[in-house]
Amino acid sequence: MSARVLVVDDIAPNVKLLEAKLLGEYYDVVTAMSGKEALEKADETRPDIILLDVMMPGMDGFEVCRRLKENHELAHIPVVMVTALTDNEDRVKGLESGADDFLSKPVNDVALMARVRSLVRLKMAVDEWRVRENTANQLGVVNENTSMMDMDVTGAKILAVEDMEFEVEKIKNTIESQSNHATMVTTGIEALKYAREDSFDLIIISLNLENEDGLRLCSHLRSNEKTRSTPILMIGSEDDLPRIAHGLEVGAHDYIMRPIDKNELMARIRTQVRRKRFQEGLRTSFELSLNMALTDTLTGLYNRRYFEVHLTKILEKNAQEQKTIGILYLDIDFFKAINDTHGHNVGDEVLKIFGKRITDNLRSFDLVARLGGEEFVAVLPDTDEKTAHTIAERLRRSIMDAPFKTSHAEPLDITTSIGGVLIKPESGNTITQVLERADNQLYLAKNGGRNSVFFEDSGKLDPEVFRPQSRPILNETQD
Amino acid sequence: MSARVLVVDDIAPNVKLLEAKLLGEYYDVVTAMSGKEALEKADETRPDIILLDVMMPGMDGFEVCRRLKENHELAHIPVVMVTALTDNEDRVKGLESGADDFLSKPVNDVALMARVRSLVRLKMAVDEWRVRENTANQLGVVNENTSMMDMDVTGAKILAVEDMEFEVEKIKNTIESQSNHATMVTTGIEALKYAREDSFDLIIISLNLENEDGLRLCSHLRSNEKTRSTPILMIGSEDDLPRIAHGLEVGAHDYIMRPIDKNELMARIRTQVRRKRFQEGLRTSFELSLNMALTDTLTGLYNRRYFEVHLTKILEKNAQEQKTIGILYLDIDFFKAINDTHGHNVGDEVLKIFGKRITDNLRSFDLVARLGGEEFVAVLPDTDEKTAHTIAERLRRSIMDAPFKTSHAEPLDITTSIGGVLIKPESGNTITQVLERADNQLYLAKNGGRNSVFFEDSGKLDPEVFRPQSRPILNETQD
Repeated sequence: MSARVLVVDDIAPNVKLLEAKLLGEYYDVVTAMSGKEALEKADETRPDIILLDVMMPGMDGFEVCRRLKENHELAHIPVVMVTALTDNEDRVKGLESGADDFLSKPVNDVALMARVRSLVRLKMAVDEWRVRENTANQLGVVNENTSMMDMDVTGAKILAVEDMEFEVEKIKNTIESQSNHATMVTTGIEALKYAREDSFDLIIISLNLENEDGLRLCSHLRSNEKTRSTPILMIGSEDDLPRIAHGLEVGAHDYIMRPIDKNELMARIRTQVRRKRFQEGLRTSFELSLNMALTDTLTGLYNRRYFEVHLTKILEKNAQEQKTIGILYLDIDFFKAINDTHGHNVGDEVLKIFGKRITDNLRSFDLVARLGGEEFVAVLPDTDEKTAHTIAERLRRSIMDAPFKTSHAEPLDITTSIGGVLIKPESGNTITQVLERADNQLYLAKNGGRNSVFFEDSGKLDPEVFRPQSRPILNETQD
Repeated sequence: MSARVLVVDDIAPNVKLLEAKLLGEYYDVVTAMSGKEALEKADETRPDIILLDVMMPGMDGFEVCRRLKENHELAHIPVVMVTALTDNEDRVKGLESGADDFLSKPVNDVALMARVRSLVRLKMAVDEWRVRENTANQLGVVNENTSMMDMDVTGAKILAVEDMEFEVEKIKNTIESQSNHATMVTTGIEALKYAREDSFDLIIISLNLENEDGLRLCSHLRSNEKTRSTPILMIGSEDDLPRIAHGLEVGAHDYIMRPIDKNELMARIRTQVRRKRFQEGLRTSFELSLNMALTDTLTGLYNRRYFEVHLTKILEKNAQEQKTIGILYLDIDFFKAINDTHGHNVGDEVLKIFGKRITDNLRSFDLVARLGGEEFVAVLPDTDEKTAHTIAERLRRSIMDAPFKTSHAEPLDITTSIGGVLIKPESGNTITQVLERADNQLYLAKNGGRNSVFFEDSGKLDPEVFRPQSRPILNETQD
């Protein structure tokens, strides 16, 4: 996939060289000759990846990277530091300032292209989520001020596949020194077993396993839905460069060279865990936003919208399967007076308690939704008349039986009126018709003195009939 | 990116050959030896791409493809037909049965791998959306029964870049014969101009332009946010195969060989337009789902959840900018009686009309939300006392001035009570405190006889003061 690359270097021939290489591979190239210009161009052209020289007069690459990562709008753009420095300390400093990788000059073409392709692919996955972030923002499920660099990177679960004993120790110690959890295995089979049973934040894979090909393991993890987006960090030696490039194509996120420098490994682990958690955060805020669309904020019950979709489906299904649905329309008696006398806060608490009691007294496959105000509806799938009556009376009693304890008033005696109907498969009723039929019964319950259940065809239910009794002693042999 | 590939062929050596090639590139391979087995394996292993032999005893490849595309769970998996047939008619038949491409045996490795990588990339973008489809389903914004093959593929806007005169005519005629709109240009510069100004469903690019490199144009379109996901169909000749493979890497979706066969071009256009619309459908249902989380179903106004997030931000902003916010708490008078007398349907219509009148009488930057039941709140940013009073009186009057016409009852005379407060930057109020202050004023308005506006510090507003007057003749020179 082509992409826009911002090349930053204060020396013109360096810029030209990288530009030519990238143009040859059909990338779109934007250039900048100083740290200041880099920040401006990044903001203006929104590149997909930034190749950033470290040593520049004025603002150096580390500082540019830090500023990019502090900017909420730009922090997700991958940064690759490009430099003549090969000192490990600088490498770590770069990663710590938020860079995703470090390439040494002269830049190896294969490594450069593999890295650019891999980072562009990762960014595009994030982009899909970022465009929707605005809505999540409006819903208040995202904190706009959270910086990617502030993400917690401890407590991560890391699986490492390595069979060289002295490396195993080093990797394990490094992981644990960061307050992360290490699971060390020596073969791909063991790794797959753990990966199936647990969820990891990062998988580290040696490309120098004695009896198998680490790349095959990478590929297999990528092809499985569960581990498809788990970051993979490869470990290899100088000779493995072509295989490392191949690994990035296969979908590994990063690599580290032997001999493993502990600080560099720490920095790379942090980078991967941070990126994964950032992306997970985007997804989660998204799920939250969607769930919000289904539920009533105050009570946490399903809302009218969900109820309508759900009931439509249930009506269709039951018509096919020739089953009867019970519908109960519930209304809190004198709710307006509660609001007027005790204020909205008390009213809101009453609604919450009411919702909870109804939920607690329904069966697991029944559904209750708040239609608005003090009106609720319960859908009882595949339910006969007797069961519907029993459930409706149980609900009425559950409200009446114990006063509602709110934080702002004396315990309140609350009652509910319930209108019930049984929808036969042959009724051909629409949702509106179903609700109207139930509403008519609710009207009778209200007019009939409230705190009662009215059912179509049956009229007012006699509470005595449904009074819970002590369980009769059953003894089959006596019959 | 690695992926799972299902290879289907009834001849074992053919399966082995393709399997070996794919394993060499680190793909995960699943195999099937008949049409029936292919359908089973597809369902069971959920591959990312299917390489499907056409000529098989029993169920042939066309039939397998048709069945895959009819299955809602599998229709999004790309299918590449692999066959010894080179007849154009079969090629078209394959595309018509829903295949994404057609490869001829013996399979060219470069073409195969470029195609697999390209299709896997497209699928992964779709996958991100499909996982969320379930929620959209629950919200009823997606019709589960819509088949990908049933999508309308007419009325698409197609931009074509071709400078060979006889081809221009053929392409234009082909596009228009499908009831699609053709925009024909001969250079990349013109293409970019149109692409900036309009939105296209497909861009067709010749790789044999006289004065420029079509691949460069592909790359540039891919790097721009607006055209990043627009399908690109390349046109090339046999000699261009390596460039076509490169084009697929750059992000083009498909290609066709010269001499252009009209039926094949039609089939490929349909395939691309169908895929684009399918993906757009997923995105749109998603946007709808999210918007639903922000709005009140009945009135279309913002809901309480959005109001709370919005007001929090406004409070913070105004504290910084030292501005005053007006808050109006509105309640429909005697709403319960409307519901009880005329039924919920009439009540719902009243709520809708009420919401519309309030919206119509606010300024564009004000916000109105329905908090629940018959309660609404309006937020007036950066508003002084006099303006807040004027707006509140205008709202009260807008409800009172004309009876509400519903479909189920005689026109109803409706009034509203409004409680208003001005939130100063130094107040440090939370949302709860703001609402409580406004609710106190609403309480006074209700107790004071309804159909009135009460403001903190000002008491009941005198309607006479705010009565709209015929506009006085302004004449600055008279002063």
